[in-house]
Amino acid sequence: MATTVTAALLVIGDEILSGRTKDKNIGYIAEYLTNIGVDLCEVRVVPDEEEEIVAAVNALRSRYAYVFTTGGIGPTHDDITADAIAKAFGVPIGIDERARAMMLERYKPEDLNEARLRMARIPHGADLVDNPISRAPGFKLGNVIVMAGVPSIMQAMLDAVAPTLSTGARMQVEAIDAAGVPEGIYAEGLGAIAKAHDGVTIGSYPSFSAAGFKNQIVVRGKDAAAVAGAVRAVEDLLERLRAERAPA
Amino acid sequence: MATTVTAALLVIGDEILSGRTKDKNIGYIAEYLTNIGVDLCEVRVVPDEEEEIVAAVNALRSRYAYVFTTGGIGPTHDDITADAIAKAFGVPIGIDERARAMMLERYKPEDLNEARLRMARIPHGADLVDNPISRAPGFKLGNVIVMAGVPSIMQAMLDAVAPTLSTGARMQVEAIDAAGVPEGIYAEGLGAIAKAHDGVTIGSYPSFSAAGFKNQIVVRGKDAAAVAGAVRAVEDLLERLRAERAPA
Repeated sequence: MATTVTAALLVIGDEILSGRTKDKNIGYIAEYLTNIGVDLCEVRVVPDEEEEIVAAVNALRSRYAYVFTTGGIGPTHDDITADAIAKAFGVPIGIDERARAMMLERYKPEDLNEARLRMARIPHGADLVDNPISRAPGFKLGNVIVMAGVPSIMQAMLDAVAPTLSTGARMQVEAIDAAGVPEGIYAEGLGAIAKAHDGVTIGSYPSFSAAGFKNQIVVRGKDAAAVAGAVRAVEDLLERLRAERAPA
Repeated sequence: MATTVTAALLVIGDEILSGRTKDKNIGYIAEYLTNIGVDLCEVRVVPDEEEEIVAAVNALRSRYAYVFTTGGIGPTHDDITADAIAKAFGVPIGIDERARAMMLERYKPEDLNEARLRMARIPHGADLVDNPISRAPGFKLGNVIVMAGVPSIMQAMLDAVAPTLSTGARMQVEAIDAAGVPEGIYAEGLGAIAKAHDGVTIGSYPSFSAAGFKNQIVVRGKDAAAVAGAVRAVEDLLERLRAERAPA
């Protein structure tokens, strides 16, 4: 059986919940983890409130192999993620000399004021995650990986931490265009195929535009032969339905 | 004190967690609810698995005034949201004659096959939510509002259900451009302002592009006078810091 490594993502930020900032990290991280063989199983978005962050981190870290967080590690009073993670793990937090050294690569010592030093406050026992863009690091404590919310910085941190992660078998994904057959027509046959093929999940994804509905059927699984078998069955089904629907 | 009506959003779909589909609903719903005076407090994304959906719905519906769900109400085997909601509430589910009638506005009786009729399966006791685009309705059971995942249909359903919701005081939001003052310079003063102004939350939101960092300070609250007072304090702070930093 293919190995599975699970993960959850915790997005931290009032601005996402108010709709003022449109999150760009969920989709990026989901695709990234899928590509390296980590299965994203759950996402949560919570506000900048310590109690909420602590509760979510503890719920997720006990359940999944990894928890990624984004947001709340800047220099202002609303950046409370590092403190919340320390609290969740019950460890002390303070200025980390490795992090201070990193920040001194960007700031002159006289410019490294108290607010900026907040970004060097790291829970005890964490490994740092490099930030090549603005230096203030992310960190990894236990199975929790804490990253920035700014997408370009988050992406650089994900690149930095990815090689250190355990990964499982990569998900094989095949998409089949169901052009010409409405979802309500192939649904019954597709359900039968899903039931008959263990080890794959089959999804049907409609989208709607001015041109009308467009449906894609997606077969996913970790065993290439099982995926290929299900794909063949779906293609046969669509071919049969297209023939039935063709004008005589 | 301003009235508050809370909400959570539950996004249901393997395709979001795999990154194949990039969610467009979270940001839309967040902004929409903020505008009508409903505070979105939490978002979760879970896979197309009944147990996960039931657990999330029950956790969220006991905690927030409303729970909105998106996804999983189509005709295929992976569309299990209606069944999961029925299970979460412990009520039976079956073909709803009102929903069947709606679907007969789109489908000829002979085209309303078993798969399409799946979309008329509604938990007992629910009110229907109109779907002007493809007719298959959403529904509202207790405080849970079940909507489609296709953005245009979800948006139409949200328009249909919004007038029936209780709403609280609208959040007043003011954004101040911190141009010319780095976040690490205004952070200390901003923290003091946040501490001194009850009833508002103040966030600092950096973004990063080829042009470098750009920071916005956002003041949010339900009392217009409190928001205005905090905005004035932030503007005074920025003005003072800009003057200090100006070349002599």
